[in-house]
Amino acid sequence: MAEPTADIALIGLAVMGQNIILNMNDHGYVVCAHNRTVEKVDRFLANEAKGTRIVGAHSLQEMVSKLKKPRRVMILVKAGSAVDAFIDHLVPLLESGDIIIDGGNSEYKDSMRRCKALEERGLLFVGSGVSGGEEGARYGPSLMPGGSEKAWPHIKPIFQAIAAKAGNDPCCDWVGGDGSGHFVKMVHNGIEYGDMQLCCEAYHLMKDALGMTSDEISQVFDEWNKGELDSFLIEITKNIMAYKDADGSPLVEKIRDSAGQKGTGKWTAISALEYGMPVTLIGESVFARCLSSLQAERVHASTHLKGPASTKFTGDKKEFVEHIRKALYASKIVSYAQGFMLMREAAKVFNWKLNYGGIALMWRGGCIIRSRFLGNIKDAFNKNPNLDNLLLDDFFKDAIHKCQDSWRKTIATAVTLGIPTPAFSTALAFYDGYRSARLPANLIQAQRDYFGAHTYELLSNPGHFIHTNWTGKGGNVSSTTYQA
Amino acid sequence: MAEPTADIALIGLAVMGQNIILNMNDHGYVVCAHNRTVEKVDRFLANEAKGTRIVGAHSLQEMVSKLKKPRRVMILVKAGSAVDAFIDHLVPLLESGDIIIDGGNSEYKDSMRRCKALEERGLLFVGSGVSGGEEGARYGPSLMPGGSEKAWPHIKPIFQAIAAKAGNDPCCDWVGGDGSGHFVKMVHNGIEYGDMQLCCEAYHLMKDALGMTSDEISQVFDEWNKGELDSFLIEITKNIMAYKDADGSPLVEKIRDSAGQKGTGKWTAISALEYGMPVTLIGESVFARCLSSLQAERVHASTHLKGPASTKFTGDKKEFVEHIRKALYASKIVSYAQGFMLMREAAKVFNWKLNYGGIALMWRGGCIIRSRFLGNIKDAFNKNPNLDNLLLDDFFKDAIHKCQDSWRKTIATAVTLGIPTPAFSTALAFYDGYRSARLPANLIQAQRDYFGAHTYELLSNPGHFIHTNWTGKGGNVSSTTYQA
Repeated sequence: MAEPTADIALIGLAVMGQNIILNMNDHGYVVCAHNRTVEKVDRFLANEAKGTRIVGAHSLQEMVSKLKKPRRVMILVKAGSAVDAFIDHLVPLLESGDIIIDGGNSEYKDSMRRCKALEERGLLFVGSGVSGGEEGARYGPSLMPGGSEKAWPHIKPIFQAIAAKAGNDPCCDWVGGDGSGHFVKMVHNGIEYGDMQLCCEAYHLMKDALGMTSDEISQVFDEWNKGELDSFLIEITKNIMAYKDADGSPLVEKIRDSAGQKGTGKWTAISALEYGMPVTLIGESVFARCLSSLQAERVHASTHLKGPASTKFTGDKKEFVEHIRKALYASKIVSYAQGFMLMREAAKVFNWKLNYGGIALMWRGGCIIRSRFLGNIKDAFNKNPNLDNLLLDDFFKDAIHKCQDSWRKTIATAVTLGIPTPAFSTALAFYDGYRSARLPANLIQAQRDYFGAHTYELLSNPGHFIHTNWTGKGGNVSSTTYQA
Repeated sequence: MAEPTADIALIGLAVMGQNIILNMNDHGYVVCAHNRTVEKVDRFLANEAKGTRIVGAHSLQEMVSKLKKPRRVMILVKAGSAVDAFIDHLVPLLESGDIIIDGGNSEYKDSMRRCKALEERGLLFVGSGVSGGEEGARYGPSLMPGGSEKAWPHIKPIFQAIAAKAGNDPCCDWVGGDGSGHFVKMVHNGIEYGDMQLCCEAYHLMKDALGMTSDEISQVFDEWNKGELDSFLIEITKNIMAYKDADGSPLVEKIRDSAGQKGTGKWTAISALEYGMPVTLIGESVFARCLSSLQAERVHASTHLKGPASTKFTGDKKEFVEHIRKALYASKIVSYAQGFMLMREAAKVFNWKLNYGGIALMWRGGCIIRSRFLGNIKDAFNKNPNLDNLLLDDFFKDAIHKCQDSWRKTIATAVTLGIPTPAFSTALAFYDGYRSARLPANLIQAQRDYFGAHTYELLSNPGHFIHTNWTGKGGNVSSTTYQA
């Protein structure tokens, strides 16, 4: 039997898998390619992989036999049962210290379960978020690996070699324990939902309130991309707005306004609810997609439900575009602050030690939300690794203080003109709530105690729960069973 | 052995259970009381139940032997494993056609599972929402039973007798199949979260923008309770605002502004995300509680983060109070419309035939959200049982049209003054989105196709998904594996 020559194996030869393999090959690693439908292996070797050092395997046995030890096997297949099936088939073929990497879009709870199960059998597991789409996979994705920490030294050189670079820094670092890599990827995708919704609200205002053409809007996004909003999504929005259909008219205006949402944005919002963190901007962004998908219902409702008397902006348009830009920027700061709040809470719940600056760096390049902004977040955590909240960092605090007047004007105008800005609005409501020493939730506590004897705390004695007999009727006994 | 005399048994003698038993006794039914800790049975018989026809049982065997057939057993214990444990112990003691009713706060998915399992064994299962707290249980709760429809004729007389009445109509009717009773109860609780948050935002604006005293605010709620907002929650808010502590100052102002949220409001928001319905007001209400509970963090942030230059309202206060009332009313209409959208979608998913007018009637009295308003909803479904959306009913449409100017002014003012109104704001954003024939989600679809080849539909050809090669680079092949 020949000496094993492959540094790593990759299972799953869809475009993402092929591109990751080609990327690894570019960086000098010998990759063994496998796919359930084995014809794909031969086709890949005969075409895309022709002339490279990539080898193939028609079976898992053959694949494992070609791997140097500790064996590194990366799975890039559809999330769910297919991942478990490959793991089940791999386990008997591997030995203690070998590493299984799941690079698919798995739910973090599945990664937690798989990590535990494999570690009990002496194997190492890594659940890695991979972002950047097909082009990222080929030329530098953002990689977010977490799981068995002992695996990290063995995969670090490969992962950091193929990852995107921000300057000289690879957009890949160790995230933390068990499911944290996929959790962080999930939050990344939730933030992506938010960033996209923010672009939409800016576009909506420019189009409907200011009556701007797609070309004019494209120019605005182009300008914005030169400043603090510099990012991949702003850049592609500029290109999309400028893109003409065969008839010379803007293609974007012909696209049906019905967005899918059955993905990780939804999971992020559910996690926020589960762990009790107010990640409102992602929540509203997911709901905005839900509402968009009721397209026929909206068209019908539009003929019945009236808006305000006046729907056109009458002030200085150029000035208002700048208000919108600041509203978007301030909202974006809130969204990222909320996302980091969620990661911090999950880290508490699952006892993960997360490297927040590292996470910002991983997102700095390669992925959909890559931006100059993430460099600012990295700086904030470099200055203070224990930063409680992004909003309290001097850079972001000053930025919001400079933006807030425009932010408020933008929303007040949108509300008056009847243009929905759910993400801008919830971000501001969060900001105003977060900076409030006193919120009106004391009334909620009084109500709950009034109708259900749920008890409340006094400001003067937190942690001590008491009941008041508000009506003089009933008893002074607090409720134990009824939960409203 | 004596002839069985009990019409129904009830397991679980916490206050809710005791009160339901006493209520049934008042209406002429013989109830057999049981509790796991049997001393509670004796104490109950010797005290609260003294002089009634209520009987007790120290074991499930004894309890079952005292029941007329078909046996009706209602369980009112802590949701979760305790319910399953009692069901497991009961099943061998019961026979075909006997009925187990779970009146606790179970998750609807548990009720679906239990209904299926019991029906497979020839038994009937009812999962019933019970609302109204301890007083409701004693003198007339709102009851929302769903499950095995064959059970309904056997429990209808008892349930409708003990339920609250709206005029002559009992606030109890058959909801639908398997878990629908608990689903509807969950949505009820979510709506309750929303209604409470709306009260809070009104109170916040009156207190902080208008500088009103608790007594003045109490008077406003008193006025509101005489009009279209007439409801239990507005009434108790009036009382809470007027309630003085021993030192003569308003107690509500001494209560810590940190509200719990680990309940059914959270489940409702998660269901909304799962089924893709934009139930934004409940979502924001749950998140508002989350934010309130970060009380220490907010106090700290309040010393760092600045608000707008001016925070006091300078216009006509009385007029603005009326704007707030209309904002609350319009937001409430949106919240109920969203809640009914969620129930309609769940009915589709689970193949339930829900009686929407009946649901409005069940909530009309007895429960925490009881209100005149629910009578208007009942009327809307009476007029048109197939009403697509509450917002399209003439009554509610006119109401919103009359309120919208005030609604917009209230939010614009709150945004300008720096007072968070997340529920008012999201309700308006939803309204403006729902009545939009065109939303900006076409940009989201273009972005997704640009970076991930996710494809999109043209307005001119819905249902047909195509891909554009936006950059001229890459390919025309659409993505199959990467989900952003």
